[in-house]
Amino acid sequence: MARRRRPRVAMATPWRWGAAAAALLLAMAAFPPARAFSLPLQRPVDCGAARYFDISRLACGPCGAHQRQSAGGSSCVCQPGYRMVSSNGGSSIICEKCPENMSGVTQDGWNCITCPKGLNSEGKCKCLHNEILGKEYMAFFIFVIHRCVRCEQTFINASKSCDCSSPNILVSRRMLILYSNLTACQALGNMCVMNMNSLSSSITDACGLFQYIYVNTARLGIVHSIAYWRHNLPWLYYGDQPGLASQVLEANHFPTIFSFKGTDKLQFIAASFDAAGNFLKWQNLEGGILQLCPDTQTKLNAAYAFGTTYQQSCEISVSKILLDFANPIFYDLFLEYNGNNGQQYLWAVPVLNLNLQYSEMFVNQGSNMNNWLLTRRFFLVDALSGKENDLGKLPRVIRVASKITISIRLVSHTQRGMIYPPLLTIAYTDVLVQNPETQSVMVSFSVNYEMNQSEAQIQTDITLGVLGGLAVLWSLLKTAGWKRRTGSSIIDLQTVFKFLLFYAGDLANVFFIITVGTGIYWLVFFKAQQFVSVLLPLPSQEEDFVTYVACAFSLKALQFLQLLVSQLTIDIFFIDWERPKGKVLKAVEGEGVIKSAAAPVSIWRTYFIANEWNEIQTVRKINPLFQVLAVLFFLEVVGFSNLALMDSSSSLSRSSESYIAPWSRILRFGVSAALWLAIIIFFSVVYERFVEDKISQFVDLCCMSNISVFLFSHSCFGYYIHGRSVHGHADTNMEEMNMNLKREAENLCSQRGLLPNTDGQTFQISISRKMRLHYDRIHESLTRKRGPARLLESSANIFEQSTRAYNTMNKFLSSFIDHVHKEMDYIVKDKLLLERILGMEFMEPIDKSIFYNDEGQSFSDVLYYGNETTLLIFDVLFFSIVDLASQSFVLAAILTYLQQEIFRFIRNTLGQKNLASKTLVDERFLI
Amino acid sequence: MARRRRPRVAMATPWRWGAAAAALLLAMAAFPPARAFSLPLQRPVDCGAARYFDISRLACGPCGAHQRQSAGGSSCVCQPGYRMVSSNGGSSIICEKCPENMSGVTQDGWNCITCPKGLNSEGKCKCLHNEILGKEYMAFFIFVIHRCVRCEQTFINASKSCDCSSPNILVSRRMLILYSNLTACQALGNMCVMNMNSLSSSITDACGLFQYIYVNTARLGIVHSIAYWRHNLPWLYYGDQPGLASQVLEANHFPTIFSFKGTDKLQFIAASFDAAGNFLKWQNLEGGILQLCPDTQTKLNAAYAFGTTYQQSCEISVSKILLDFANPIFYDLFLEYNGNNGQQYLWAVPVLNLNLQYSEMFVNQGSNMNNWLLTRRFFLVDALSGKENDLGKLPRVIRVASKITISIRLVSHTQRGMIYPPLLTIAYTDVLVQNPETQSVMVSFSVNYEMNQSEAQIQTDITLGVLGGLAVLWSLLKTAGWKRRTGSSIIDLQTVFKFLLFYAGDLANVFFIITVGTGIYWLVFFKAQQFVSVLLPLPSQEEDFVTYVACAFSLKALQFLQLLVSQLTIDIFFIDWERPKGKVLKAVEGEGVIKSAAAPVSIWRTYFIANEWNEIQTVRKINPLFQVLAVLFFLEVVGFSNLALMDSSSSLSRSSESYIAPWSRILRFGVSAALWLAIIIFFSVVYERFVEDKISQFVDLCCMSNISVFLFSHSCFGYYIHGRSVHGHADTNMEEMNMNLKREAENLCSQRGLLPNTDGQTFQISISRKMRLHYDRIHESLTRKRGPARLLESSANIFEQSTRAYNTMNKFLSSFIDHVHKEMDYIVKDKLLLERILGMEFMEPIDKSIFYNDEGQSFSDVLYYGNETTLLIFDVLFFSIVDLASQSFVLAAILTYLQQEIFRFIRNTLGQKNLASKTLVDERFLI
Repeated sequence: MARRRRPRVAMATPWRWGAAAAALLLAMAAFPPARAFSLPLQRPVDCGAARYFDISRLACGPCGAHQRQSAGGSSCVCQPGYRMVSSNGGSSIICEKCPENMSGVTQDGWNCITCPKGLNSEGKCKCLHNEILGKEYMAFFIFVIHRCVRCEQTFINASKSCDCSSPNILVSRRMLILYSNLTACQALGNMCVMNMNSLSSSITDACGLFQYIYVNTARLGIVHSIAYWRHNLPWLYYGDQPGLASQVLEANHFPTIFSFKGTDKLQFIAASFDAAGNFLKWQNLEGGILQLCPDTQTKLNAAYAFGTTYQQSCEISVSKILLDFANPIFYDLFLEYNGNNGQQYLWAVPVLNLNLQYSEMFVNQGSNMNNWLLTRRFFLVDALSGKENDLGKLPRVIRVASKITISIRLVSHTQRGMIYPPLLTIAYTDVLVQNPETQSVMVSFSVNYEMNQSEAQIQTDITLGVLGGLAVLWSLLKTAGWKRRTGSSIIDLQTVFKFLLFYAGDLANVFFIITVGTGIYWLVFFKAQQFVSVLLPLPSQEEDFVTYVACAFSLKALQFLQLLVSQLTIDIFFIDWERPKGKVLKAVEGEGVIKSAAAPVSIWRTYFIANEWNEIQTVRKINPLFQVLAVLFFLEVVGFSNLALMDSSSSLSRSSESYIAPWSRILRFGVSAALWLAIIIFFSVVYERFVEDKISQFVDLCCMSNISVFLFSHSCFGYYIHGRSVHGHADTNMEEMNMNLKREAENLCSQRGLLPNTDGQTFQISISRKMRLHYDRIHESLTRKRGPARLLESSANIFEQSTRAYNTMNKFLSSFIDHVHKEMDYIVKDKLLLERILGMEFMEPIDKSIFYNDEGQSFSDVLYYGNETTLLIFDVLFFSIVDLASQSFVLAAILTYLQQEIFRFIRNTLGQKNLASKTLVDERFLI
Repeated sequence: MARRRRPRVAMATPWRWGAAAAALLLAMAAFPPARAFSLPLQRPVDCGAARYFDISRLACGPCGAHQRQSAGGSSCVCQPGYRMVSSNGGSSIICEKCPENMSGVTQDGWNCITCPKGLNSEGKCKCLHNEILGKEYMAFFIFVIHRCVRCEQTFINASKSCDCSSPNILVSRRMLILYSNLTACQALGNMCVMNMNSLSSSITDACGLFQYIYVNTARLGIVHSIAYWRHNLPWLYYGDQPGLASQVLEANHFPTIFSFKGTDKLQFIAASFDAAGNFLKWQNLEGGILQLCPDTQTKLNAAYAFGTTYQQSCEISVSKILLDFANPIFYDLFLEYNGNNGQQYLWAVPVLNLNLQYSEMFVNQGSNMNNWLLTRRFFLVDALSGKENDLGKLPRVIRVASKITISIRLVSHTQRGMIYPPLLTIAYTDVLVQNPETQSVMVSFSVNYEMNQSEAQIQTDITLGVLGGLAVLWSLLKTAGWKRRTGSSIIDLQTVFKFLLFYAGDLANVFFIITVGTGIYWLVFFKAQQFVSVLLPLPSQEEDFVTYVACAFSLKALQFLQLLVSQLTIDIFFIDWERPKGKVLKAVEGEGVIKSAAAPVSIWRTYFIANEWNEIQTVRKINPLFQVLAVLFFLEVVGFSNLALMDSSSSLSRSSESYIAPWSRILRFGVSAALWLAIIIFFSVVYERFVEDKISQFVDLCCMSNISVFLFSHSCFGYYIHGRSVHGHADTNMEEMNMNLKREAENLCSQRGLLPNTDGQTFQISISRKMRLHYDRIHESLTRKRGPARLLESSANIFEQSTRAYNTMNKFLSSFIDHVHKEMDYIVKDKLLLERILGMEFMEPIDKSIFYNDEGQSFSDVLYYGNETTLLIFDVLFFSIVDLASQSFVLAAILTYLQQEIFRFIRNTLGQKNLASKTLVDERFLI
């Protein structure tokens, strides 16, 4: 904001000036700070006929003898039959009874005359109906006026003539207004306000003069017990002691409580004055008095609905400003409230003028409240003091209140809707008028709601610290468990790396919990409160929150990628339990001999199982897309997004005519996170019942096809799905298969479990290192063909080798399960509760491998299915991060869907390749 | 709109009136209609010093001798040194030179005086600087005026005094203004306008008086060659001949062409007058002159950007109206254009006042243009004529222009942006002023763009007729083909029903083509045009279009449901070509004897195939969800939805400060349909290459597993997938399978086709009735168990029976393919081109069944895959219908997704049940 120095409203004054205004300012500073800045509301009409409205006190005062209230109400006039002898405005008039023979009074009230046709009720001469009076023409014609005007009373008082006699000097036109005592001080005050209330050592400008008068009229006493409001003077300044601003703003509560329910309004009311110092009227701020941008009444008035953060800005052309604000209007702003006695009271609203200079420094532009110099009176547009020579011409420069902010600050800890007195902050811009039609000014008006957020910040920090510490412990534990599962015990770089990965995941959860907690906290406590106890952080205070969400997302992404990688490299093998049914008699071609050979075991069951495994790789517990669209539906169609608006309404819809408050990023996050959670909870209860359980179906299928699944997620840890058919064989025709299924349905078979008379088909397995070494040896030749060293070997050779290795592996694993290898035996046991909770095994499989019963089908941990929580949190964070960046729920939903599809595609494709390479099943069967 | 009768502005006049005004009106009607209503633009400043601005002609006229232009410009004044002798306004003044000794002229100009301090440049007495003049105070003080005023010139002219002497009578205050000739006629015209220009038989109201003068001043001649604009009179009416309105509105084109590119503006300009008839100024309508609702300058001015349909409405409080429109202002509206010579011209804009009464009838409220009575002058708010007795008090009633519409009508067939003269339509509302603070009025302002849509309607109707006729033929053909395929030839109720279903589908396509064509036509031709050749239908004209879309949707839904039902009831059988490898030696328990039995053929290959078939049932060529979200992305995030706004911009974004025009439903449909089509085309080219072709994979798999698929979609028509393994058998172990795959990859095997040395694996089959009867017989026992009559039989029996039937069927179908049954043989041939195009078979399979080669894998017609077009159109229409109903693309996308999911679920679940029942494969293997 470029600030152009403009000429001060300079003035010649009849007084003699002392040297240093600073001393005077110090004198002023000695006043004690007032406890409250409150006064009763009185209007001119309230004063009645015998009293007048004292514009300097904004209260009623008594008229003298033979006097009554004038038509405007702000001065006294003589009663009918009395003529004015002297008048200095207000109640300072002297009346004198007219002689009997001249009972009428002239129109101007200064002389007694004889009225030929009698008197009217005002004591003036009656006018017959057909006597045309100029006034009647007013609706149609404004005549240029050339007429006689009575000299100013000051001239008459001083010289009994219209001459300006020595030692007085005739000051410039503009100063004439000073000679009316009634409004002179107000006019002087206005000039000071037009000078931005700036105080300097000079005493020759309007503010200096005002201060001089202020200091020298201490004996007149103060008004309404407000220390800074001198009798007969306008109240322009609070004192200038250091730290007074914070006392004014925060020492007292505004004596009304506000609530969100109902329609609590901020009842701002302003006493308005013209430049000459005349009191115009009490004006409610509703209807856009301070809002320079045009808008409908409803939207303008929304600025004063308690709790609605309001922002308005636009460009307005200078020509329109010149038209609408030809004469400046000055406002003394108050906030109205009801006292206990039913009387309406006013609380003075302090003004922080950013353009105010104090000893040539812009003290109000800093953030240090102790340096602030609060003022009272302000204006919107000053197109007057920029006029040079001729009042009828355009001003050379105009000053516009380009940025007006009303700050409502909540008192913390009261839970009862107490606020501090509001603060009006104004920044002015000077515009050099060159071409009013094409020039324009950017203006804005806003109402902010603030509260001290430091405590919330501290609480967040504490939570973050505590949970972060726990996350370290938890990650250490997981690393220990991981070490056990990999069968190694030395702490190497990989271990540290693994720890960091675990820690990333846990820290992501911590951030997620904190952000979701914070978001929902604000949503619930801000929107649901009756008496206001919390207010939202300002947009600038949201940065921390956004950083937390970003941290949560990036850490979670790291964890997700690590999960993906580990799932794509698991070892898997399908053990076919089927044995040849017998020998097949076969005619050997050309020899005429019938040979017997073992009947081949059909590979199609393995194909079937592999195909199904391939399909369940990316199956999820809850349809993720359905969730995304459900969230989008509730946000955009049902209208939950309206809960993220910074207003007090908790309604889901806004009429097109009402004001739409700006978004709060925290509330946007809170609403969408809350909806995600609600939908997840709802669907995990409802949805799963309607959708087939692919995982159990797979386990069933294993059993029906007589195939077991051996999975290694770590070197020495994995899962086993026992799929040995209870019928002994499954490689048969439809007749027998259907028979078997029927027998099982009728409970005519033994149970499916690994141990006799049990049902347990799924196990977590902790494998001894010996067993693992054996497995690795066979596995090596199974997959060796992919090594570069084998390029030279003929493909037939490789092919034969891997088939042989496949058969060896099948034989080894099935004999292992059948306890054939005494040196590599295993035991079956239940996991301890603590082992389950911690997700680690306490016993080390030294001699024997250990099979842990696992009813929870935890082998799905190597699939998407078993990592639903991680995936969901990743989705929620992805959605939120896109929304925070773009402020568009639609884009967030679409990108979340795309992200899901891309990762699913990667997981599927690479997972399929891994499966094909580890099980030797051709990819053509994995469709 | 309740119309309250209010008192006319009644007047007493010094003239004597004839009886029937109707005769006079007829006289006026005799004038020939003017060819154009155009005049050059002249401003008061353009006239120069020697000419004045004649407000009745809106043109410059010469001042007389010793005269020059007045300060305001609209009259002449005497030159310095000359005094006025008489003045009737305008140029009707007489000047006289002042005597030498009295060279000065008084302020009012009527008298010569001696100036003590010399003359100023205006020939008046000089005023020293320190002589205070009231004028200087004007900026601060408005004094109530009680002063001497010169009598009206008419009084002086008539009686040389201020007395009103007989036979003249002093009329009411308001009529005084009539005595100034300069503005009297204007004022009279204004009164007529305040009376809504209503003409009745009475001649005593303002309009009657105006017409009387109009008729009786014919000799004065017309202005600017406009027949209805009489010299010295304001132009209030066009004539009242029947049909004149259409001639005024449509006989001439406005002589400027408009384009959408660039920023063509409608340059409306209005001559404004006050109630007294004084010309105020030429006023551009920009800046919200006619817009009563407040808004920012940018949004207000958008009303006059050519092509932007503008709508604004709000409630404004009566108190604000009273404040802003204390004095009525009258407007003569013109549209500005540039002539060839660089001169600016004006075209008079006619006004259609809906409240105008002609012989007590509201003639302008009907839609019959021939009855309309067009007028010229109008006002926005009349708070004057409702004032009773005292002009200073509030009016009893105010009249507000509550609905203002500017209609821009395009000339059809020119393709060059020609428009007819605009029409301003105004409806007034009378408001009884009771409590201005709480009362409010609903006001609206709109700018509409129209063109004659009848031709477009006719073209649509013709297209609909032609295509509808073709659809009948096409449906008849399809019905014939269907009859052939079902193997029946009698025309029964079912045939008629089937015909109707076919017709529904075809008619849906017709409606779809027409609506999409129309939508895209409007989108392209409206948004992309440079010189304007088409304008959008008005919202009321969109109803037909919406009906068409609804028809298309409901018919398409019918077709879709029929498709679903037919797919859910197809007959399918998997032929297993595998034969037992030989005998298996088996030890019979208890007897110690080794028996040989046929080695069972494993059913798992059939399971595998059935499982895959189950999975491809609802596979689609293009991911439908991806499309929905892509459409949503382009509409809502990229901003294509902005193309559906009724403005001339073809930009995809709108700034938040600019005016947002209303939606066009046709454009919404056009944009979304165009996007759908573009995305479908794009993805059918690009997407398919990246996504595996499930259908070919399935055919491959059949061949690898040695299983053929037999499908009957009709009684005597179906599809055959030849899956006989080239290796003779497939039921073997991994070693052999991999070997086989490798041999095939190295082209060491014979080809897969049904005929030797061909590749053709897929066929359409036309089956003879004999064959079908045989099939049905076996099939009956296969599925008989579901019949209620079989409940009593033991389940074992049923089970055995169906297994036997399965084997029989397998044997029968494989022998059929192997040409074993001579009486049920088949031939293989190519389909004729015409057969392919028509989708029917010309040959009837009497003796032999016919296998048609089918490279197009048309068996996918019984899956979602082969009916992509129908599904896509259904999706597009579903999306559109939701959007048209809710005006929300987000909701449309979400519901389209839901719809897809629901139907897919139904198709999958029921399809699975049908598959299980037809093939005897247990549902547990269809996962």
